Amino acid sequence: MFSATDHGYMAQALRLAEKGLYGTSPNPRVGCVLVRDGKAVGSGWHKRAGEPHAEINALAVAGAAARGATAYLTLEPCSHHGRTPPCAEALIKAGVARLVTAMKDPNPLVSGRGCALMEEAGITVQTGLMEAEARELNIGFITRMAEGRPWVRMKIAASLDGKTALNNSVSQWITSEHARRDVHRLRARSCVVMTGIGTVLADDPQLTVRHIKTSRQPLSAVVDSRLEIPVDASLLRGAGELIFTATASEGKILALHDMGARTIVLPDENESVDLAGMMRRLADFEINEVLVEAGCRLNGALINAGLVDELVIYLAPYLLGDRARGMFKLAELTDLAEKRPVKIRDLRMVGPDIRVTARFS
Amino acid sequence: MFSATDHGYMAQALRLAEKGLYGTSPNPRVGCVLVRDGKAVGSGWHKRAGEPHAEINALAVAGAAARGATAYLTLEPCSHHGRTPPCAEALIKAGVARLVTAMKDPNPLVSGRGCALMEEAGITVQTGLMEAEARELNIGFITRMAEGRPWVRMKIAASLDGKTALNNSVSQWITSEHARRDVHRLRARSCVVMTGIGTVLADDPQLTVRHIKTSRQPLSAVVDSRLEIPVDASLLRGAGELIFTATASEGKILALHDMGARTIVLPDENESVDLAGMMRRLADFEINEVLVEAGCRLNGALINAGLVDELVIYLAPYLLGDRARGMFKLAELTDLAEKRPVKIRDLRMVGPDIRVTARFS
Repeated sequence: MFSATDHGYMAQALRLAEKGLYGTSPNPRVGCVLVRDGKAVGSGWHKRAGEPHAEINALAVAGAAARGATAYLTLEPCSHHGRTPPCAEALIKAGVARLVTAMKDPNPLVSGRGCALMEEAGITVQTGLMEAEARELNIGFITRMAEGRPWVRMKIAASLDGKTALNNSVSQWITSEHARRDVHRLRARSCVVMTGIGTVLADDPQLTVRHIKTSRQPLSAVVDSRLEIPVDASLLRGAGELIFTATASEGKILALHDMGARTIVLPDENESVDLAGMMRRLADFEINEVLVEAGCRLNGALINAGLVDELVIYLAPYLLGDRARGMFKLAELTDLAEKRPVKIRDLRMVGPDIRVTARFS
Repeated sequence: MFSATDHGYMAQALRLAEKGLYGTSPNPRVGCVLVRDGKAVGSGWHKRAGEPHAEINALAVAGAAARGATAYLTLEPCSHHGRTPPCAEALIKAGVARLVTAMKDPNPLVSGRGCALMEEAGITVQTGLMEAEARELNIGFITRMAEGRPWVRMKIAASLDGKTALNNSVSQWITSEHARRDVHRLRARSCVVMTGIGTVLADDPQLTVRHIKTSRQPLSAVVDSRLEIPVDASLLRGAGELIFTATASEGKILALHDMGARTIVLPDENESVDLAGMMRRLADFEINEVLVEAGCRLNGALINAGLVDELVIYLAPYLLGDRARGMFKLAELTDLAEKRPVKIRDLRMVGPDIRVTARFS
């Protein structure tokens, strides 16, 4: 159904889409290549929310050459008037003859409509080329659209024997500069970087993207059931903060508001933050990808609640021994059958450290 | 100094040597290729202690064709009358014209003598081709010859979060069949598989090579300071056992002797087994490679004593949480500067599990 040439151009469109990795949120990363008579006549990608979509950028390059062309597009073109006019109409108007997309729109309310519009206009439409790669690129956007929650990625920095901090809380720095730069790439693609109050009090982290270039900073989020965050915490000087708490302490909430932080009171029955409710709320805020960089308590609570999709574990080449802190505070198991399975997705060296990417299924 | 052709034949000799991986102990693994007029005229490897050395096997194949040949040899030929006559003399007698070896004999008492004998006979001798590979192959033999102790490899089976057993001691099976088969390859190349009394009492392991083919079984060793091993322990039905203890309990020692086990009383000042003394004793017994498969107590004690050369850590794709047991019982650290560095040598998947090979330097 798809030729080698089709694969080549879609791969090119995916590479273009990836250029928007740090910029398009809350929109998806999308790339487009227009090909006529065996030649690419235009290409483009979506750069930032509010700016033109990939198709429009590609059409602008192609001009009249778009007539009769095949459009390779990593996501179904939109069919609705949003911040920009519908791209399906623009492709039709430009006279595109064939549309090849990697996947349908993951929003169940509009999925298939863009393709249908184009088919009605007599254009040949084929969907599903390199769909797995396209889904990976927008895994957070897709999860939010399909399930009403963000994709939650948890980063762990540990020693080779699985220890994340000494018993006296010392944890800076467990891993190498190379691993830290890699973590900043994960931060840059995220909409929110989340931590727990324990980490704020122990390390006073900034949670910003610093070691690589980015056109935007992610928001910070803190899980802080008793609203203990100091108003001079470093992360409150960032691009925007969300403090999730179970304590409606008005004075503190106002003080945090003055610092530019938004406090969301969301208690569960144990006077802790309702973690599942927090994730739904983040999806309401159009958060696609959350990066959790926390200690063993919040890590364990999120895993326990089944709210983590992916683990990115950096293992540094040394031992700390069994008295140091573990990765996840979880209830004691008495049977190996109760273990929590993951699937290893990727394994590689990052400088002197090992990086394991694993997913819960 | 060495040509591409030289490298090719030495690589072939190394592959031959490797065929002896499970069989030659306490001798080194050695391979030999004889080449005349650009053609291999004979090759061989050492199979078992007491049987002919690699050179003799290769000369037997080559016959008269050895005259004028180049001998590629992964280790310097022996110069002394041991269980077999000296190979250097055999090579001279056969009329070999050139000798290329990967490395000198690591025994300081005879190192260089085989090469010298041949040079005196007018043969061109070149040493050091692919030495790093040759050293890896005989890492235990070399350590024993050069330092009077065996190479100690420690195997750990853990969950992705670094846990080796539940708190109730349940640890069977942490890793997959693939990893277990891989461990049996490590057992097969070892002279001794060592464990602690805690593991004997909890798991009653056999410590034999079962899932792969081998021509010999390693000895078992147990570190058992108070001589608590039950006389019906499964491992006492193996190929030979060494029980290291700090307790000279005559009746128990005799009972163990009746089971074919040898008890070595080697106390330190804390009435525990003197671990460094134990390693020296193992070298006296011509033990080249020790595989430690123990729990966090013996693992920690050996690491603490600086007696471990290599870690082979299998990480299974699931989480057990921080209440489960760690890899190494070590004193609590208060400063990250006290961490114990290792160097990652190899990283790969073994079935669904991750395998990390690391070395202390």
